Amino acid sequence: MTAPEFDAAFRDEFRTLLRWRRDVRRFRRDHVPQALLTELFALADLAPSVGLSQPWRFVTVADPQRRAAIRANFACENALALGALSDERAAIYARLKLAGLDAAPVQFALFSDPDPAQGHGLGRRTMPETLAFSSVMALHTLWLAARTMGLGLGWISILNPDAARGVLDVPQAWDFIGYFCLGWPEQACETPELEREGWERRRAGEVVER
Amino acid sequence: MTAPEFDAAFRDEFRTLLRWRRDVRRFRRDHVPQALLTELFALADLAPSVGLSQPWRFVTVADPQRRAAIRANFACENALALGALSDERAAIYARLKLAGLDAAPVQFALFSDPDPAQGHGLGRRTMPETLAFSSVMALHTLWLAARTMGLGLGWISILNPDAARGVLDVPQAWDFIGYFCLGWPEQACETPELEREGWERRRAGEVVER
Repeated sequence: MTAPEFDAAFRDEFRTLLRWRRDVRRFRRDHVPQALLTELFALADLAPSVGLSQPWRFVTVADPQRRAAIRANFACENALALGALSDERAAIYARLKLAGLDAAPVQFALFSDPDPAQGHGLGRRTMPETLAFSSVMALHTLWLAARTMGLGLGWISILNPDAARGVLDVPQAWDFIGYFCLGWPEQACETPELEREGWERRRAGEVVER
Repeated sequence: MTAPEFDAAFRDEFRTLLRWRRDVRRFRRDHVPQALLTELFALADLAPSVGLSQPWRFVTVADPQRRAAIRANFACENALALGALSDERAAIYARLKLAGLDAAPVQFALFSDPDPAQGHGLGRRTMPETLAFSSVMALHTLWLAARTMGLGLGWISILNPDAARGVLDVPQAWDFIGYFCLGWPEQACETPELEREGWERRRAGEVVER
């Protein structure tokens, strides 16, 4: 089999994908076909993982009571975060919409197995956190793939992880990576919402040389 | 500005990119132009980050003594990992080539700032690990972008992180994410090397429903 070569046109469009990815918090309520979800989770399985361990554990959340409990968890932690800010920052923070839990048609959590049999432990003896890192790359793969389909994803980390694990009734040992909203975005934008709202702006990173 | 739409041809080629990414350990020694490196680090800056904090700190490593110290760190930890295995697994492990440190023309480390001013703390109060997760997504962005240019990347986690931090003379507080080899791969392959060598195989993940 011949290895694929990616031409300049593809590289340009890939850069466009990165530039327009976005963390989405404003969703239309339209249904997302199951076939698209199935394809997204299958693409996530192509992500790199330490020792080929594939420790990602995706948990779709459809049950209204569980969704309500996650919304309450977010509301509580978001209020605490707001209360911890200076007046100046709090004024901006209060205006931000930080989750699409109200409208996103698809919601799922991601956990990471901290001791999977798969992979036989390779590569993680000194750095067990590489398991969680692998799960994050599976999520990021899904995120980019979703955008190629016109779907938006939002990552919610303003949660109590222990409470979220309890609500979702998964093994105690699993590490909570995040909770995610997925659906058709109300709008597309090249600029992050946090930048548009004046919270923070993107910068060019400095590379250190050694 | 009109939002881009990605067509079926792009989605197919993006899937091909995911399928052929690979963790590369066998490199040609040919030079990688600085312009490509500059572009890769700039693309990494487009990755998602909690609160737009951009906590990734890339450290390129050119100094021969530092490179030698990293090789020694790897050799030590790889020997300890081998010694901890059962005879059956050790026989396979000993055959694996787990790092391209001998030939990769470009080497760099990635650290994550555990308390960046940028982002004003948004989104990480209950989950400080989202900073490291953001840095991992920057690395994964660079990894995919490198493959679109024909470049291969290998992630080395079989290291003592504290020793690596010392060798690279970076702030004590920075979290070590990983050490990376980059260059033109000797070969391209659709199947992971760990699978070809009989260590582990890829599986289809199961999605839990709640």
